[in-house]
Amino acid sequence: MWVMENNLSIGEVNDWSRAVQFGDGVFETMAIKDGRSQALNLHANRLSLGLSALYIPLPADDLTSLLLSYINQLVQLSGVQSGVLKIIVSRANSARGYGFNSSLKPVVTAFYSTRQEYPVSHYQDGIALQKLHTQCSVQPQLAGLKHLNRLENVLAKNELSVDFFDGVMSNYLGNIIECTASNIFFEKQSKLYTPDLLVSGVAGIMRLLIMQYCKKNRIPLSVQDINHADVASYEGAFICNSLMGAMPVNIIGKQELTITPLVRKITDAVRSGKIYE
Amino acid sequence: MWVMENNLSIGEVNDWSRAVQFGDGVFETMAIKDGRSQALNLHANRLSLGLSALYIPLPADDLTSLLLSYINQLVQLSGVQSGVLKIIVSRANSARGYGFNSSLKPVVTAFYSTRQEYPVSHYQDGIALQKLHTQCSVQPQLAGLKHLNRLENVLAKNELSVDFFDGVMSNYLGNIIECTASNIFFEKQSKLYTPDLLVSGVAGIMRLLIMQYCKKNRIPLSVQDINHADVASYEGAFICNSLMGAMPVNIIGKQELTITPLVRKITDAVRSGKIYE
Repeated sequence: MWVMENNLSIGEVNDWSRAVQFGDGVFETMAIKDGRSQALNLHANRLSLGLSALYIPLPADDLTSLLLSYINQLVQLSGVQSGVLKIIVSRANSARGYGFNSSLKPVVTAFYSTRQEYPVSHYQDGIALQKLHTQCSVQPQLAGLKHLNRLENVLAKNELSVDFFDGVMSNYLGNIIECTASNIFFEKQSKLYTPDLLVSGVAGIMRLLIMQYCKKNRIPLSVQDINHADVASYEGAFICNSLMGAMPVNIIGKQELTITPLVRKITDAVRSGKIYE
Repeated sequence: MWVMENNLSIGEVNDWSRAVQFGDGVFETMAIKDGRSQALNLHANRLSLGLSALYIPLPADDLTSLLLSYINQLVQLSGVQSGVLKIIVSRANSARGYGFNSSLKPVVTAFYSTRQEYPVSHYQDGIALQKLHTQCSVQPQLAGLKHLNRLENVLAKNELSVDFFDGVMSNYLGNIIECTASNIFFEKQSKLYTPDLLVSGVAGIMRLLIMQYCKKNRIPLSVQDINHADVASYEGAFICNSLMGAMPVNIIGKQELTITPLVRKITDAVRSGKIYE
């Protein structure tokens, strides 16, 4: 096929990135601290699950080693010890159609950038969440995966007002799913609740670490549908992802929330690094 | 940020394609016949609507002229008079996050390839449709748009057995939406029915042309939810897109369908070019 970009001829090519054409791939975003990731195996494991779900061959036999190799090389190249690694694995290049040849070798692209530090007050006093209109897609086969079809997050982020740190998204079924780039946990009467991600959303690594921490420390946690109309019944909440860690929520929309002892316990465990033990 | 691809260093860059990172853009696929498109204005119009819905600035004041310019240049470059133009407009390049600067200039990438001719029997005798498990996402803000988040189509195409020409997809709500790369119309008692695309699916240009043709020719047509359990109640069906035109359906799953006079009338109108008049 013949290709032109921004009115300039690129010439005749056989194929083009399927990430560009269809968002055909998955990605991971990892915090790198002092040259290493604290959740390397979990990221490698999620990457493997995502690729399998999309029938994309693994780009290496050992994904943990693959991630480690990119981390080491990029830390050395950049001279930056603590940063953010984003790694995209796309199916391959191909011609125009949706169909693909399953023997094609996937393309790995790794991006390493400096890390944004958040104000300490976000962790101490909590942050405010907007109630967003932009919905999370309902699609069971893609739910939970950190795939490259992220238009809903782009639109959600665009909807976010400067008065709020992040915004909470629901799906068409009326259930709270997550924030634009983080997962959410609620608390009521010393029990935690987090949205079931069976039909919508991204299952974050920090969410998983917190679920494991709760299990180990016998903190009651229910993974379930949380209707957006029921948010008012919760006393506390926090949001989390691999980069920010976990932050207490003090406002959702117009509803004020308390930073309860349990919310404080979890967010402190993330901040101190206990969560990785 | 520092970038590596397939273990090779690309060096330090400021940004990367948002089409790759998030599928942040839209596209059009147009049939070019004897050096021109028969639905130029409709494609330009849908492109404009899609870009507006995603808050992407138009890449030119006059999108019809923009498309025309790409068609003319690519036909000349390739020497191919009848082919397929795929044009992608992505928001821009940016750093890692979902947020974007609305002043960024979008990137236009145009691909021109030779056109696949389908066997005449597909138009005369009809084609068979598989009932697919892969679902169309439920997301009202993205529904109808020809955006770059097309993983569900990739998975649906992968599910398609070689015994079928295409497959019909439903959404989580149990409604029939479309095929992997075409829209679908049903017939019952000389009336046509096509799925409402308010929460799922892509509103195709050929679907629009057929809707306009029905209106002009007083052919009754209802755009409505069609539950997948009700498919058995229809007598005939056809599928359509800008490249194949329209093809009668003779089988959906295990159900046999008749090529009714009305199905024949519409598919013939598309084939003869009457649909463009």
